[in-house]
Amino acid sequence: MQNVGLWAMGFQIGAPSTPDNGSIYLWGALVIGVLGLVVAFLFSRSVLSIDAGTSEMQAISNAIREGAEAFMSRQYGTIAIIAVVLAVLLFIGYRLSPFTAPFANKVVISFLIGAICSGLSGFTGMFVSIRTNIRAASAARTSLGRALQTALRGGAVTGLVVVALSLLGIGILFFLFGGLEHPQATPYELVGFGFGASLVALFAQLGGGIYTKAADVGADLVGKVEAGIPEDDPRNPAVIADLVGDNVGDCAGRGADIFESTAAENVGAMILGAALYPVFGIKGILFPLIVHAINLVASIIGVAIVKTNDTEDPMSALNRGFYVTSALALAGFAVAVYQMLNGTNVHPGWLLSCGVVGMVTAFLFVWITQYYTESKYRPVQSIAEASLTGPATNIISGIAVGMETPALPVIVISAALLLSYYFGVRGLADVHIPGIAAYAKGIYGTAIATMGMLSCAAYILAMDTFGPITDNAGGIIEMSNQPDSVRDKTDKLDSAGNTTKALTKGYAIGSASLAAFLLFSAYLEEIKTIVTAKVNVPGGFMPPGWSFTNINLAEIPVFVGALLGAMLTYLFSSLAIKAVGRTAQMVVKDVRDQFRENPGIMAGTSKPDYGRCVRIVTGAALKQMVLPGALAVLTPLAVGLVFRNLSGSFHIHIPGEYSPVLNGHSIDLAGAEAVAALLMVGTIVGILMAMLMNNSGGAWDNAKKYIEDGHYGGKGSPAHAAAVTGDTVGDPYKDTAGPAINPMIKVLNIVALLLVGFLVR
Amino acid sequence: MQNVGLWAMGFQIGAPSTPDNGSIYLWGALVIGVLGLVVAFLFSRSVLSIDAGTSEMQAISNAIREGAEAFMSRQYGTIAIIAVVLAVLLFIGYRLSPFTAPFANKVVISFLIGAICSGLSGFTGMFVSIRTNIRAASAARTSLGRALQTALRGGAVTGLVVVALSLLGIGILFFLFGGLEHPQATPYELVGFGFGASLVALFAQLGGGIYTKAADVGADLVGKVEAGIPEDDPRNPAVIADLVGDNVGDCAGRGADIFESTAAENVGAMILGAALYPVFGIKGILFPLIVHAINLVASIIGVAIVKTNDTEDPMSALNRGFYVTSALALAGFAVAVYQMLNGTNVHPGWLLSCGVVGMVTAFLFVWITQYYTESKYRPVQSIAEASLTGPATNIISGIAVGMETPALPVIVISAALLLSYYFGVRGLADVHIPGIAAYAKGIYGTAIATMGMLSCAAYILAMDTFGPITDNAGGIIEMSNQPDSVRDKTDKLDSAGNTTKALTKGYAIGSASLAAFLLFSAYLEEIKTIVTAKVNVPGGFMPPGWSFTNINLAEIPVFVGALLGAMLTYLFSSLAIKAVGRTAQMVVKDVRDQFRENPGIMAGTSKPDYGRCVRIVTGAALKQMVLPGALAVLTPLAVGLVFRNLSGSFHIHIPGEYSPVLNGHSIDLAGAEAVAALLMVGTIVGILMAMLMNNSGGAWDNAKKYIEDGHYGGKGSPAHAAAVTGDTVGDPYKDTAGPAINPMIKVLNIVALLLVGFLVR
Repeated sequence: MQNVGLWAMGFQIGAPSTPDNGSIYLWGALVIGVLGLVVAFLFSRSVLSIDAGTSEMQAISNAIREGAEAFMSRQYGTIAIIAVVLAVLLFIGYRLSPFTAPFANKVVISFLIGAICSGLSGFTGMFVSIRTNIRAASAARTSLGRALQTALRGGAVTGLVVVALSLLGIGILFFLFGGLEHPQATPYELVGFGFGASLVALFAQLGGGIYTKAADVGADLVGKVEAGIPEDDPRNPAVIADLVGDNVGDCAGRGADIFESTAAENVGAMILGAALYPVFGIKGILFPLIVHAINLVASIIGVAIVKTNDTEDPMSALNRGFYVTSALALAGFAVAVYQMLNGTNVHPGWLLSCGVVGMVTAFLFVWITQYYTESKYRPVQSIAEASLTGPATNIISGIAVGMETPALPVIVISAALLLSYYFGVRGLADVHIPGIAAYAKGIYGTAIATMGMLSCAAYILAMDTFGPITDNAGGIIEMSNQPDSVRDKTDKLDSAGNTTKALTKGYAIGSASLAAFLLFSAYLEEIKTIVTAKVNVPGGFMPPGWSFTNINLAEIPVFVGALLGAMLTYLFSSLAIKAVGRTAQMVVKDVRDQFRENPGIMAGTSKPDYGRCVRIVTGAALKQMVLPGALAVLTPLAVGLVFRNLSGSFHIHIPGEYSPVLNGHSIDLAGAEAVAALLMVGTIVGILMAMLMNNSGGAWDNAKKYIEDGHYGGKGSPAHAAAVTGDTVGDPYKDTAGPAINPMIKVLNIVALLLVGFLVR
Repeated sequence: MQNVGLWAMGFQIGAPSTPDNGSIYLWGALVIGVLGLVVAFLFSRSVLSIDAGTSEMQAISNAIREGAEAFMSRQYGTIAIIAVVLAVLLFIGYRLSPFTAPFANKVVISFLIGAICSGLSGFTGMFVSIRTNIRAASAARTSLGRALQTALRGGAVTGLVVVALSLLGIGILFFLFGGLEHPQATPYELVGFGFGASLVALFAQLGGGIYTKAADVGADLVGKVEAGIPEDDPRNPAVIADLVGDNVGDCAGRGADIFESTAAENVGAMILGAALYPVFGIKGILFPLIVHAINLVASIIGVAIVKTNDTEDPMSALNRGFYVTSALALAGFAVAVYQMLNGTNVHPGWLLSCGVVGMVTAFLFVWITQYYTESKYRPVQSIAEASLTGPATNIISGIAVGMETPALPVIVISAALLLSYYFGVRGLADVHIPGIAAYAKGIYGTAIATMGMLSCAAYILAMDTFGPITDNAGGIIEMSNQPDSVRDKTDKLDSAGNTTKALTKGYAIGSASLAAFLLFSAYLEEIKTIVTAKVNVPGGFMPPGWSFTNINLAEIPVFVGALLGAMLTYLFSSLAIKAVGRTAQMVVKDVRDQFRENPGIMAGTSKPDYGRCVRIVTGAALKQMVLPGALAVLTPLAVGLVFRNLSGSFHIHIPGEYSPVLNGHSIDLAGAEAVAALLMVGTIVGILMAMLMNNSGGAWDNAKKYIEDGHYGGKGSPAHAAAVTGDTVGDPYKDTAGPAINPMIKVLNIVALLLVGFLVR
């Protein structure tokens, strides 16, 4: 570990005099993390103790559960193989260079633990959700309030497990890696944890997204279009696969997504906190963990107080819980800022304002998403109206709405970045410590904003998982022929669930953008650290105050990196969408085969082999997720390795510029710069594409529902047929490619962070 | 004009000893420009002398001609008003600052001349094309070879007029503005010309694109869908508007587009040439004009030699002409490089290689476009196959193909930029003159590549305009009930025309990307020039060798500029697509009204009022083009003005960095940097979006044709219906939004160039 001192060099000036201060905060955060798991366990026990309904309901629920669990096992099996292969490659790669070799063990261990935690939180969330749906359905037979509580608490298990495991994983690794002794060097050693989380999230979203839409599209194509049987008809061999898809796509995928957002945000913010060590000491590094401890406590209380009766709109009850959570989180955030981010010449009020910027950003994102996807506003109505003139105009207007959607969120993100950066600079304006540039202060401000945005994550995730639970509950009630009064209740819940699902998608992309910006800043910081270590030998020279912040778009390799980053997003989306098409074809083929092999199915005299269809779509989805996933992992690697070998002719020399020098040569950073541009522009285009796809998909879906509610001719009219086409087009947008872009952006950034040791020549 | 010397300061060192050298080249280029116009006149006379067919054919042709001319007059009337308003604003704006005031007259004059030349070339091309179509149709009654020659020569009129007017406009302005006396300062004064050209192109593409697709979609919706009458049925009041649209969208739009590409490329390359004045003298500045003189001569010969008989594939004959043109252009290019871009320590072989890189890039772009849009390759076939399962899968697979298309072109552009930059640096490696950095050498290499790419532009534009001419010729033959043998000939020509249209779209976007990069480099160069002038006063200091090349993506305002640039492209496309929808609704309404007011129309007893529909769609299209156009013009202005007032807290200070200083303060370049990022990322995303839209639109179109050729059930099958939906979705992609992005990118860049005086504080 003699190199740790090397890495951390240049920062020790001005370190606070009480280095062991941090242990209280670390242990406090860990205790609350454990508490979060305990409460999750209690919630799940209370949910599971509810009566599971009639045997008819159970039969349907069991078929869904078995399919989902079979898919999850195989999916995580595949991801485990990919993870082990990557772990071996990481280990070998890290051993190759003397600068990275000391970290090989830690990176690989934290990578595997990150992957395992992510898998665990996805699996647990799934395990509980899939058992909650039937219990929520069952509770709906007696009271709407109980059904709502059941569904929300089932969802809260996912939310709490995700945040608690992220907190515990990072906190324990921080402790084991000696973070209390050398707090500045340790955060970077946790990057592996973020990579593990992002990798699992990427494949979970891709695999689940491909599965759910392939089953959906395939079942519809062969059932409704070819055989002429209604949706969810039990004669369709793909019907169970379709219901399974709702679970594996929505629950498991979103859980893994938010897990990696919090993990990435934790690791990124800790690395940036390490850069401000002379100001805040270990408290600046541990601050993100405390924010998530607050998040857990506030969310538990928020979930616990949600109650409703049979007459209230369920959305109001959910919102009440959200407001309580937000207020508590804000109060806790304020205390934490004044307690931890304080000191001589620090103005914590400005830093708290950064957090408020993040919270306001979250609200605005949710509001904008609502505007573009709810049927009471212009965008969805324009699509519904365009359906009157057929599928082509429906799709054209949906595309136009989709292309319009990034405008407002981009303005919001821009304002959030500018403000939180400015507040960060102001908050630390009077701190004058050598090596702490205005840039580090401002960027830490954006990190605080990101933490603010994620400070209610557990509650929001609970609301999100509430969506598929109530969706399935409604399906079970419908398929098991319950009385209309029960259906009315589940319909109300289902409609609230659709709203929460759409809103949290907006939240997910907003937090993903800020988290990606954080990782990107951490990447710049780590390049600086490794260059510092590299030239700290005889023959090396580091200009005082140098930092790696010069990503000059006017340099051709940087411009080319930017071009490739933008292109990558399109290619990734294309591959994800094509994967849905290919997998759906397999479903179509199997259903046709089953109809031909067993004519009793259509006649209604014999049961189709649901399991065979589930197995086929499982295998195909897992095969198809590999290529887009590999593209995201390998592109930064390829660009970095190619460009680091490009001649120095492409570097623009800035007059008077001091560069770090080794043995008379400037350190060649062409590879690091090209990768930086790839990350930034890849992130920008990725955010925009994700918004476009999520929102237009949601708008198409709700335009269809709006028509089904009786507008423009209602169900069965030509406008409805056109809207169904639009909805089908939107499906792979909003449920496969769009959500997979979030983890893709973060995988890009985190792979680059892992690569810093190889990019610097 | 005493300020000219001020602007040009810092460059006079090392100027060649024979400053009046340039006049031969300038006059030579101007003479060839006039020659181009003369040949264009001869071509048009020879085409117009051909017999104009039967009176039935003439009646149809006249109706199309009148509608097109009415639209063109009103469109150019609207554009003229916009141009005059902008000219006044430009003049006032330029008078406000002492640094820009001396240029106010020149910028406004060159702006108006650029706009007039662009309008003239669009109008002339249109005038001839619309008279050529019936003559090509008429010639097809006797021989395929004659019909082909007629259509190509009619198309060549557009090609020659466009290139010749660009050459003459810039050459004459250069002379009048005293370019032979102070060659370094004059190129920047021509930026107005580029702005005039781009502005007209933007509105011509938008207006024409909205018109053509609104008429098309509107006519189909109300005719085929509601009234159940076939396409092109004379009972449909919108049928003439639809045919008019083919002309105003395809001919006039593309002509204006290539005009502004050559204008932008000329101006940008001349500005970069001025930066290398100490190396090449005036010859480096006049080189772009000579390249276009070569372009004219080579293309005239290429067009003249195209001959075919009734059995050959017309595409082979067109390709033969293209190969001859390319070979001549390459030879001329080589002579010009060795003659003009030569001197002590210069290695012209490397510089010629830059040109070759540009030509190869053009070939590769055309080839890739072919792959994605022709029915013999996988992409189109996959869309056709997906049509079997309905419109939704057709559209999903079309979108997936569209998202895949940018990948290869991006790799080609990246390689072209890296290679031509590297070759440029190598070609001038032994030139050691103070103030000439490696960057200027490399960027001039990319400029040479752009000129190489555009060195066959006139021939390619002839091939492009050949498309709509043969399309209309086919329509006239069909509607006037000619014998099958004649139809077979026009079908062959029409099919070749479809191919050339698709290929030249690939060429247009490729050249637009490189031209935009050129303009962007010119922008950086001009910021440097104006900062140099600004600090050249008592109290000012300019670090030796400083240049404005530091567009640091890690700075928040730069990142935000990048984010806004990306968003702008999406919003622009959304507005363009929505404009089509809105205008189409007007068509639908008018047709419905006409059917109701006059029941004799459907009965076939009375003629519909074609003119009314033409007038309505004209008015609506012109109204709808204003908003997206204004967005492109105003965004760089708004971003520049807002960010120039942002505090310096956002600037990242690079240690040791020397900045230009005035009265003890560094010059604030935040606005200039944010705009630079807006341009670059806006350009990157714009290029990708344009490829996506053009190629997926072309692929959908050809998938439909592939099915119409008898595959997957052929015409009238459900697959065909699905493919028609896809084709309709692709229409606004490939004919409105996609082509309008080219001029939008260039308007962004050129507005920024005009603004440099205001961005520097």
